[in-house]
Amino acid sequence: MRMLAAIEAGGTKFVCGVGDAAGSRETARIATRDPDATLADVVAFLARAVDRHGPIAAIGIGSFGPLQLDPAAPDFGRITTTPKPGWQGADMPARLRAALGVPVAIDTDVNAAALAEAAHGAGRGARSLAYVTVGTGIGVGLAMDGRPVHGLGHPEAGHLLLRRHADHGDFAGICPYHGDCLEGLASGPAIIAAWGGSLATLPAGHPAWTVQADYLGQLCATLILVAAPEHIVLGGGVLSQPSLLDAARARTRERLAGYCAAWTDEAFATRITAPGCTEPPGLTGAYMLAAAIA
Amino acid sequence: MRMLAAIEAGGTKFVCGVGDAAGSRETARIATRDPDATLADVVAFLARAVDRHGPIAAIGIGSFGPLQLDPAAPDFGRITTTPKPGWQGADMPARLRAALGVPVAIDTDVNAAALAEAAHGAGRGARSLAYVTVGTGIGVGLAMDGRPVHGLGHPEAGHLLLRRHADHGDFAGICPYHGDCLEGLASGPAIIAAWGGSLATLPAGHPAWTVQADYLGQLCATLILVAAPEHIVLGGGVLSQPSLLDAARARTRERLAGYCAAWTDEAFATRITAPGCTEPPGLTGAYMLAAAIA
Repeated sequence: MRMLAAIEAGGTKFVCGVGDAAGSRETARIATRDPDATLADVVAFLARAVDRHGPIAAIGIGSFGPLQLDPAAPDFGRITTTPKPGWQGADMPARLRAALGVPVAIDTDVNAAALAEAAHGAGRGARSLAYVTVGTGIGVGLAMDGRPVHGLGHPEAGHLLLRRHADHGDFAGICPYHGDCLEGLASGPAIIAAWGGSLATLPAGHPAWTVQADYLGQLCATLILVAAPEHIVLGGGVLSQPSLLDAARARTRERLAGYCAAWTDEAFATRITAPGCTEPPGLTGAYMLAAAIA
Repeated sequence: MRMLAAIEAGGTKFVCGVGDAAGSRETARIATRDPDATLADVVAFLARAVDRHGPIAAIGIGSFGPLQLDPAAPDFGRITTTPKPGWQGADMPARLRAALGVPVAIDTDVNAAALAEAAHGAGRGARSLAYVTVGTGIGVGLAMDGRPVHGLGHPEAGHLLLRRHADHGDFAGICPYHGDCLEGLASGPAIIAAWGGSLATLPAGHPAWTVQADYLGQLCATLILVAAPEHIVLGGGVLSQPSLLDAARARTRERLAGYCAAWTDEAFATRITAPGCTEPPGLTGAYMLAAAIA
């Protein structure tokens, strides 16, 4: 087994590891600052790791986006239009390739997580899997037949326009592009903006819970109706609230209203789940991206 | 080249052909009645065609649905829950295999059409393509890397719950499962139920046009955000109204609001289009399904 490197590049932290999809030998968390400072720390970690554990064959990056993933584009591998200071146009693959002299693959963090959950996590054996994360933003990745899905761009289902819940009143939403798209209504910061606190601080009967479950149900129903995944993993900070998973399943079922016959009671219970990877799925998926080019 | 047979199985007619995806040598249209009567005519046509043109190597069917497409399921290949009299549980592949002694492949009509449009039609060269048809119902098929997409079930994006347009008032929608899902609001019969006539009979300034374009725009934006197809083909009777395609493009762009950078002006103009296959795309796609098992 050749050793690989994996990077889960997030807006607040980079999680880096050396090892493979079966497990890291060593990991590090690096605070996200500008690209120069952040990648210098990443390179230093990987160089030390090589000294300790031996050479790495390739690096995989599961990154926040949007990313240019069209190999024919001149800006292939770069972050495109992000409001994150300094990161617009950042070319992580080129920098790491230059610094470490090994091939580098990149995809979205959520596509990497979808790959990982289908191969090693809660959806083990699923031929197609959608990975949803609800936290600072809302991201959705899609893996089919062991490959991340992209075409013209990559999945961005956090920005779906779903039907507003009546209990959300006239809350305008916080997405700078779309106002009250899914991310604008149901991300962690949107919940705080609408209700004055995170779900964890709001009592069980608070309308925020009903509204949030409704949006998650609409999202899962939309994913099922468009892409027919065999499994949906719901992850991220907001979804760590245990009752939300069950509520999201129930609302998904209500939305489908018996139309998709393959979604039986058992399917709802076993195919819409929390993540199941041992390590963060974005990191495990980054190892898989690396393995594919090693 | 071995000769193949293709069947586009629709709710009102079956279009059958012998030839291959490059073109039919002979086709026939057969009115859809109950399965016994309809398939007897199909078998008779194919038997005559074999007498005239020589043996066929395989049969492909692009069918109305929903279909059971899980090869591990006991009802693999059958139509599942349809209100169409006599068709629930119908096993077209088994009947045609028994009658003609050749392998038979089946997928949804819209998945077959998506395959065909990506290989031979308006999206020639696209690695991923969504095919939308708006007529008696609304169907959406998805092809990626030359294969139809299915997982737990198959795409059913006609039943998406989109945001209602204010000008639609309190029209309840006509979908027996979901009321005002996309098909319930925007299929041909829904347009007639809401406005008292088909689009073709309504003047250019009628709100029906605005409402219809909005729903099509929401659909395309949803497909892009979930599955990131390289091309979207808009087909079917309702979309034969020429101005609707441009209006749908404009509304898709408004919905995305600049978020998906790969969707440039040129992309909207060239990657959301009418169908481009010479023959009905469902028929061409059915030849492709046959070729894959021949």
